[in-house]
Amino acid sequence: MYRKITTEWKGGMTFESDDPGGKTVIMDTEVEGTDERFGISPKAAMLSALASCSGLDVVSVLEKMKVSDYEFKMDVEGELTQEHPKYFHKVKIDYHFFGQNLNEKKIKKAIDLSVEKYCGVMEMFRQFAEVNIEIHYHNQ
Amino acid sequence: MYRKITTEWKGGMTFESDDPGGKTVIMDTEVEGTDERFGISPKAAMLSALASCSGLDVVSVLEKMKVSDYEFKMDVEGELTQEHPKYFHKVKIDYHFFGQNLNEKKIKKAIDLSVEKYCGVMEMFRQFAEVNIEIHYHNQ
Repeated sequence: MYRKITTEWKGGMTFESDDPGGKTVIMDTEVEGTDERFGISPKAAMLSALASCSGLDVVSVLEKMKVSDYEFKMDVEGELTQEHPKYFHKVKIDYHFFGQNLNEKKIKKAIDLSVEKYCGVMEMFRQFAEVNIEIHYHNQ
Repeated sequence: MYRKITTEWKGGMTFESDDPGGKTVIMDTEVEGTDERFGISPKAAMLSALASCSGLDVVSVLEKMKVSDYEFKMDVEGELTQEHPKYFHKVKIDYHFFGQNLNEKKIKKAIDLSVEKYCGVMEMFRQFAEVNIEIHYHNQ
């Protein structure tokens, strides 16, 4: 199975990529002397891809388990190496669930399945980073 | 140096991540029975991050080398493994330059610097994938 994208330089420090699903994404970087940004940072996009990939697994599995009525967010922090090429050598994912009477057992099971079996982006991250996760249940 | 993002589940199969630069990005996946997409795929976003990271290096280096008057795009194709967790085990990046009297030597030097020294996302990819590159000069 293949994925293919095209990334076009739009001038300055701005790049636009298409996506097989039809949307586009703009990526750029900080430019000295200006705060203006047109897109997201490639390295931060890697962390967003990691969270979204795992999050998609988790909500899919919970749907199959008939678990609903919860809110869910993830914080992802990556530590970059000091020397070029700078890559993430440590990554921490905090899964936060909010709701009444959260089914902690099923939520943990869904996250375990993503981490251990399904999430391809996490498998990629594990090849270059120490990945740690923590689950937080916010019963309201 | 740390990068931190927060990814929030927006319902359905849709996730929104913030970015240290202030923009946001929506990621989702194909849902059976509908063509509607709200965002980009996490795995394709990994390829976009790879292209944009390297592209940023290349235009920065070419700017320092006083090379301008060119257009530039990249095609990135990744091959996923067949078994879960599905990760990219082969990646090909095609760098395409368009212009009159392209300075092929300096363009190649800029790409080599990105590939071998600066691009952190490419260093991450090399830990899980065989990465191949090719440069195409379209003198017009």
